[in-house]
Amino acid sequence: MTAVERGGPAVSEAPAACCSPLAQPNMSLDDAAVTARLFKALSDPNRVLIVNLLANAGEPVCVCDLNVQLELSQPTVSHHLKKLVEAGLVTREQRGVWADYAVDRSALGRLATVFDVGTVEGRSTT
Amino acid sequence: MTAVERGGPAVSEAPAACCSPLAQPNMSLDDAAVTARLFKALSDPNRVLIVNLLANAGEPVCVCDLNVQLELSQPTVSHHLKKLVEAGLVTREQRGVWADYAVDRSALGRLATVFDVGTVEGRSTT
Repeated sequence: MTAVERGGPAVSEAPAACCSPLAQPNMSLDDAAVTARLFKALSDPNRVLIVNLLANAGEPVCVCDLNVQLELSQPTVSHHLKKLVEAGLVTREQRGVWADYAVDRSALGRLATVFDVGTVEGRSTT
Repeated sequence: MTAVERGGPAVSEAPAACCSPLAQPNMSLDDAAVTARLFKALSDPNRVLIVNLLANAGEPVCVCDLNVQLELSQPTVSHHLKKLVEAGLVTREQRGVWADYAVDRSALGRLATVFDVGTVEGRSTT
């Protein structure tokens, strides 16, 4: 970290080369707070795997199938699913004695907005 | 949460309707752990905004420009940038007295893999 970053000259004193125009953010701080909560729910490896499985399934998945696939106990899987449902990343629907889970498409859309994926993919990476 | 989820019958005792075949996850637990660390770095609203700004910029952005855009102090922005660089989401390059920051495209690609975005977008949301 440079001295400049930690309390150097104000922007008005910046060298002529600094700065190029910066685009406005496409989200408000309130939006960012909602999105940050979604990311927080994904800060656990097993929850990442669960969302990955549900996203790939493309249709609601029975909790019993998740237990088998993840090789985790039912209470552990249920704990992670509860966190994901509370965060709004996953939906839950009772189906007889079992519960089905699916990714919430609008929540995934919100996450994609952060990265502006469509634009990013069209740009050179080098 | 149902009684079944909290210690009900084992999968072998499941009703005949349960379960439909579930696709294999497209990531290992180790991969999921790396990805979870990226998500953790994004569990803060200001870091979400910073990544959003950098992704939209499409080119390295001077730290001084981020301060102005985010209306945050330079030390606060530097703190968040440090977290993002440590997580591998953002790259840093010294440019004279300033530092330029950019999103790490491979890290964004890793995040997109979780949601299988290409496939998800082609599916119905209802």
